[in-house]
Amino acid sequence: MATFRPAILIRKKEGKPMKAPDSLAQVAAIIEKELDKYLPPESTYPAIIYQAMRYSVLGGGKRLRAYLAVKSCEMNGGKAECAYPAACAIEMVHAYSLIHDDLPCMDNDDFRRGKPSNHKVFGEGMAVLAGDALLTRAFEVLCDAPHELEAATRISMIKELSAAAGCAGMIGGQTIDLQSEGKVLELSELAVLDAAKTGALIKAAARMGGLAAGTGANEMCALTAYAESFGLAFQITDDILDVSGESSRLGKATGSDAKKQKATYVSHYGLEQAKALAQHEVEKACQSLTLFGDKAADLIDLAESVLGRDQ
Amino acid sequence: MATFRPAILIRKKEGKPMKAPDSLAQVAAIIEKELDKYLPPESTYPAIIYQAMRYSVLGGGKRLRAYLAVKSCEMNGGKAECAYPAACAIEMVHAYSLIHDDLPCMDNDDFRRGKPSNHKVFGEGMAVLAGDALLTRAFEVLCDAPHELEAATRISMIKELSAAAGCAGMIGGQTIDLQSEGKVLELSELAVLDAAKTGALIKAAARMGGLAAGTGANEMCALTAYAESFGLAFQITDDILDVSGESSRLGKATGSDAKKQKATYVSHYGLEQAKALAQHEVEKACQSLTLFGDKAADLIDLAESVLGRDQ
Repeated sequence: MATFRPAILIRKKEGKPMKAPDSLAQVAAIIEKELDKYLPPESTYPAIIYQAMRYSVLGGGKRLRAYLAVKSCEMNGGKAECAYPAACAIEMVHAYSLIHDDLPCMDNDDFRRGKPSNHKVFGEGMAVLAGDALLTRAFEVLCDAPHELEAATRISMIKELSAAAGCAGMIGGQTIDLQSEGKVLELSELAVLDAAKTGALIKAAARMGGLAAGTGANEMCALTAYAESFGLAFQITDDILDVSGESSRLGKATGSDAKKQKATYVSHYGLEQAKALAQHEVEKACQSLTLFGDKAADLIDLAESVLGRDQ
Repeated sequence: MATFRPAILIRKKEGKPMKAPDSLAQVAAIIEKELDKYLPPESTYPAIIYQAMRYSVLGGGKRLRAYLAVKSCEMNGGKAECAYPAACAIEMVHAYSLIHDDLPCMDNDDFRRGKPSNHKVFGEGMAVLAGDALLTRAFEVLCDAPHELEAATRISMIKELSAAAGCAGMIGGQTIDLQSEGKVLELSELAVLDAAKTGALIKAAARMGGLAAGTGANEMCALTAYAESFGLAFQITDDILDVSGESSRLGKATGSDAKKQKATYVSHYGLEQAKALAQHEVEKACQSLTLFGDKAADLIDLAESVLGRDQ
């Protein structure tokens, strides 16, 4: 039996650059407009909460999660717009998690996406509320969005999102993270932390895209495997960037993991081995999509681009 | 045309006591068990987040909102258990709002329901996460709960809850509240604040109970009117209790509104007129339920009991 040869290896041989797919910027621009529609204008009473919400959701972020939802939907034969509510809901949940994580009582970060954190601009109380409001609005969007989605599909999406954002997912990960500062985590604990804190929402994005397309069980399995490997590769490169990235490109301070004595893939494996591990996961991600053939091109490009990321 | 004579006036004449209906305690006990089922045990990893969630949801609270959901469902011919997921979701959202409101960066209250506030026990970071987790879990419960609810009904409930908990409801109210400390609010602003901060979730509870029973438009209108008046009466008596209640009964400090120079119905109208206003709203609430006849007895008892509350 011939060994499977992941696209990434072929591309690397051909000298193709590892940059984000062009369609990422196109989808990001569409999602920006959709998000703008779903967030009431800043003139709405009481204005400050809408200002605080919009400050952290609009005008920044790579929209990776939204892109995953949209492309997972398209790859499964769905119309892109059917994934827009899911994409917006996920970006809102992502933004809420960043606002709350940046609070002084959590990770205490003053910068995010190249500008002062939400609580530095609006105060801590308002930042807590803005996060709460975005989380709440995400679920409302999934109910209300005027797209061709049946009630049962919307319920499946809300299940997916609430499970990923909850204690078995993102909040569980942040809990472990908060408790682990200054401690050296076992590798298995680090894997659980990352799968929960970062991986769960990335997986939910891909799966919600699949749900929007009404995809079958096999395809959903493949999507899930892709997203799990992609999420892990993304987290490893995040750890790498915290050591070797430029804060001006990242839009946040670097070296913060080491300063907080946080366990990361780099602190465990060293820089070179962490890079090799990220590459291994990207290859696994690409392999997972074999059954989609050429339709997987965008998601394969996305996975590859993780290895070249500088932000 | 004969003037409508609300039940409350008849009962008062008969000297009936203004105490909470017996069925409130029965429903509260059932909901306590349901909530316990929906919250993973404290042994689940990572334990502290489950401990923090359970600390603030279980073993306390009057369960008024849960009762409203259950009784609104029954009054409309639905089975009580069809309202349990809604009742639990609302109690989780209520508990989350109390945890976040009590934070030092918000109302900075050290006691709640007769015990130290969540952040005094678990720390601020964990209290933020516990609130986030309860809000998230509320939506998950509405999707997952194994009761006879169609997907479309669940979506209607999630819409109702997310709208009530969001910026046009509870979070909007808390925003106005945060911004109004030390300022004298106009009466109209105070009404908006209370309708949003307290009233919206109470109204959602009644309406979600109606949805669980598959009720019609007229009945939903009546339920809504009842809940609006009930919510206002409840808020006014809350303000009254903050002035004249006993902190040992209330489980929290009294006099905090005056200390924070918060505008309340008592600061606006004085104690006696505030009491009269509460009674007027209770009468309106009872009148709203005329079309339900005897089936409204429990909700009428509940409304009346607000005037006799000491906690």
